Amino acid sequence: MSSSNTASVNKIEHLCIIGVGLIGGSFAQAVRRAGLVKHITGCGRNIANLEKAVELGVIDDYSQDIKQAVKSSDLIFIATPVGSFQSVFSQIKETMKEGAIITDGGSTKSSVIEAAKAVFNHVPENFVPGHPIAGTENTGVEASFATLYQDHRVILTPLEQTNPDAVNIVSQMWVAAGAQVVMMDAHHHDLVLAATSHLPHLLAFSLVNTLTTLDEKQEIFENAAGGFRDFTRIASSDPAMWQDICLANKEALLEHLDYFCSDLNQLRDALQLGDGDFLMKSFTRAKQSRDEFVANKNSD
Amino acid sequence: MSSSNTASVNKIEHLCIIGVGLIGGSFAQAVRRAGLVKHITGCGRNIANLEKAVELGVIDDYSQDIKQAVKSSDLIFIATPVGSFQSVFSQIKETMKEGAIITDGGSTKSSVIEAAKAVFNHVPENFVPGHPIAGTENTGVEASFATLYQDHRVILTPLEQTNPDAVNIVSQMWVAAGAQVVMMDAHHHDLVLAATSHLPHLLAFSLVNTLTTLDEKQEIFENAAGGFRDFTRIASSDPAMWQDICLANKEALLEHLDYFCSDLNQLRDALQLGDGDFLMKSFTRAKQSRDEFVANKNSD
Repeated sequence: MSSSNTASVNKIEHLCIIGVGLIGGSFAQAVRRAGLVKHITGCGRNIANLEKAVELGVIDDYSQDIKQAVKSSDLIFIATPVGSFQSVFSQIKETMKEGAIITDGGSTKSSVIEAAKAVFNHVPENFVPGHPIAGTENTGVEASFATLYQDHRVILTPLEQTNPDAVNIVSQMWVAAGAQVVMMDAHHHDLVLAATSHLPHLLAFSLVNTLTTLDEKQEIFENAAGGFRDFTRIASSDPAMWQDICLANKEALLEHLDYFCSDLNQLRDALQLGDGDFLMKSFTRAKQSRDEFVANKNSD
Repeated sequence: MSSSNTASVNKIEHLCIIGVGLIGGSFAQAVRRAGLVKHITGCGRNIANLEKAVELGVIDDYSQDIKQAVKSSDLIFIATPVGSFQSVFSQIKETMKEGAIITDGGSTKSSVIEAAKAVFNHVPENFVPGHPIAGTENTGVEASFATLYQDHRVILTPLEQTNPDAVNIVSQMWVAAGAQVVMMDAHHHDLVLAATSHLPHLLAFSLVNTLTTLDEKQEIFENAAGGFRDFTRIASSDPAMWQDICLANKEALLEHLDYFCSDLNQLRDALQLGDGDFLMKSFTRAKQSRDEFVANKNSD
């Protein structure tokens, strides 16, 4: 980390949020509340959402033109679906201020770094790839709130050449938003997130899909209880965003999906054979891990 | 339904709860609060749990001997894991009062009916198989509460020969507990519940199990967020209870598991091919169904 006096978060006169939804809107609210920014410009495709964002005080003004929106920004936060990053970078590149810091809230990191490389021919030294491990299944600026990141992790995946001052400033902003900042290699991030986030989303979408094709569909949903509601909550997430994430992190996701299917198949065989001991052992190990996970989370 | 004057729930002088955990304890509390029972005897294997149940006022007294516990009971509620039902029926049979009503809270219904047949050589006319669609992942009497069944469904699966007076009394008790009573064929119940409850539990146990075997286990759990917590909540359920349920409803569960795996495999192929349209279509259909499910639940 740099101890340079110039690497101060006080320098953020003008923040630009590209994609003023749950993630971008919550970041804007959190850093504004912390007094770290003077002016926030929003950018997005949905004008009603942008007007709502101004009305709610999440942003000060907006432009639907990325080139225009980023022109005078000191820090650019990209919170659009990860599939759009290459296009966003191309537009930013044309008009951004020299020295402006770019960071993001994308759920995959290798793909985002590749997109930057493709546009800039190298990963810009002021680009700090990031991923806040927080969210709800709701979307749009109205779903955003200042404390979304409170007590949540934010993973930053700077590269060797990333400017430590930029990393420092982005870290300070997340810390001010109440988050715990963790540094990780981008590829490693993608593997870990494939397991805890991308695979569960794929399974939840897939299960609900399967149930909708069954003859008993109506009764199935009528007789579902709280367990089912929680298990499938993430299947109410934004399809476009998750299409992007799955494609962007395809290799890691396929790897974990195949582990999962192989283990599930073993459990299936045990069930068919009536091997209660195998089921008992598997369920017990799962319960122990899950209980430990919750205990650790609560003591965070 | 019978309109007989004798089929009154006021007749429950003495209720026996076999298995004073979340389900049994909550039933006891709900019907006591509704003023429908005069005396409640608990029965179970864990003496500390039974003493706690007396201390909490959930039951009035207890016996660890089923034969003793049911001797003077007018209504016997069985809330033990479904794998124990044959043994429970055998013991009840020896000492139960003539005309006593038996009902249960078991998550599978065909297996429970088969267990009764095996013991009594027929399904007793005063046995009303039931399944409250409610629960949490917690266990033991301390997890129980009087409003667990409030606004939840209870499915009863009486047979043709079941005494309508017994069905009526059991229904009245559930209604007094705040539940909505639904009648269903036992086999149909098992198919529907395999889809909404048993399969999700199996998948949640299986996923957590797979993650515990990965090298990144520690980091995986450290970086998991709310979506993962909800998705895996049911993996904190009681392993013994779920071993029993899976084995008891093996055929229906295998059938739905195979549908699920076949669809998941299609999704896997689409992902590998980078077929974003397929993913988008699947995710969108899932989100729509899940959103409708939640909207309908909220308007119940």
